[in-house]
Amino acid sequence: MSDAKIRLYVEHPLAHGQAVPLNADQAHYLFSVMRLATGDAVLLFNGRDGEWRATVQQSGKRGGLLSCSDQTKPLHLPPDLWLVFAPIKKARTDFIVEKAAELGASRIIPVQTRHTNSDRIRQDRLQAHATEAAEQCGGTYVPEVADLQPLDRLLGQWPADRRILWCDETLTSARSALATSPPAPWAILIGPEGGFSADEQKRLRAMPQVTPVSLGPRILRADTAAVAALTLWQSTLGDWR
Amino acid sequence: MSDAKIRLYVEHPLAHGQAVPLNADQAHYLFSVMRLATGDAVLLFNGRDGEWRATVQQSGKRGGLLSCSDQTKPLHLPPDLWLVFAPIKKARTDFIVEKAAELGASRIIPVQTRHTNSDRIRQDRLQAHATEAAEQCGGTYVPEVADLQPLDRLLGQWPADRRILWCDETLTSARSALATSPPAPWAILIGPEGGFSADEQKRLRAMPQVTPVSLGPRILRADTAAVAALTLWQSTLGDWR
Repeated sequence: MSDAKIRLYVEHPLAHGQAVPLNADQAHYLFSVMRLATGDAVLLFNGRDGEWRATVQQSGKRGGLLSCSDQTKPLHLPPDLWLVFAPIKKARTDFIVEKAAELGASRIIPVQTRHTNSDRIRQDRLQAHATEAAEQCGGTYVPEVADLQPLDRLLGQWPADRRILWCDETLTSARSALATSPPAPWAILIGPEGGFSADEQKRLRAMPQVTPVSLGPRILRADTAAVAALTLWQSTLGDWR
Repeated sequence: MSDAKIRLYVEHPLAHGQAVPLNADQAHYLFSVMRLATGDAVLLFNGRDGEWRATVQQSGKRGGLLSCSDQTKPLHLPPDLWLVFAPIKKARTDFIVEKAAELGASRIIPVQTRHTNSDRIRQDRLQAHATEAAEQCGGTYVPEVADLQPLDRLLGQWPADRRILWCDETLTSARSALATSPPAPWAILIGPEGGFSADEQKRLRAMPQVTPVSLGPRILRADTAAVAALTLWQSTLGDWR
């Protein structure tokens, strides 16, 4: 039995001796792409039961069966951090979702703002990116990618206790703002390329949950800003400490 | 005269009344792509004289002439921070260079390690990416992209006073390691996908300049690690404070 290198997200429950059936996509990946055979090991996680070692019992073109042996990692849930962003060009949107999963966001929410070009996203494709990033980075959790929604609606029903780190171009550095913040549920808010409209800015400034911060003297692209803000939050209030 | 939105890096000196000739690429970009005409304004920077407003005096298919009027931004040099990384797949290498320029690295050094696949890079293409990122992010400086060189050789002649932030998977968080570090010239070192070899690790551990740090509980891709480490350094010791 080879050492398990491949990590696979599955929906099935995982436990000692548990049989895990594979769908056609998973079977194709494991048996045709990665060339696994009966007796080979893989690592499984489902976002609830941690990471488990499993071995191939049956392999086929359109399905297969794995059997769980032992738990290799406990469940590690990310901190309660949302990433709210306005989708940009396809490659950069994919990138933001991948990075958010890698850096440990718990929920990813694409929003339409006044200056957002896209009026639709491929939610299923973005969710698949998040899953692949979780498989790759050794995480045991896949953040949910929400469907595209208007920023106005999201802010209209915003929870009173969830803080918003608004990556504005103010003079307060993100690091010092976070250093004096209490632990709480948070969301990072990244604007579209054209920035937020005057109305949106006014609304955000009026919300008591909002902390506007700066990310340095240069103007960061939306994808860079997302990674930088996730990093600063995780290293100050999150699970990098 | 329209409000200047376009930023262009030029090599020519910039000063009040200075005439700045354009080469064929720059003329193509300004006059064919961006459709500027005589009298229109652009912003210029050259990495030495800050940012200047200039107006189009002559436009042509293969060249043109601008005239500098007033300085719009003083020169802002980035802190003395190098990014040393092992090139990965093309798109992710491009991305690392773009992000390093945006986040304010002063020098970008691609290195060959034992587990690096690429034995060559297109230095000119990467340098063009760095220039474009500087134009886009409002910076007044373009970091130099060095040619690919063996890590062994680079470490062999490493300056005694330049610290190395080695993004290893140790238990020391990058944030706390940086918080107790004195200001100094630094370099961030990001390994290849397969990690550093045992020999390379041994050598790095033996260097007094090296500070090994962790970037959280998940395993970051090289491009994510580069952005995260640059962010933490800039927010702790750099120009984001």
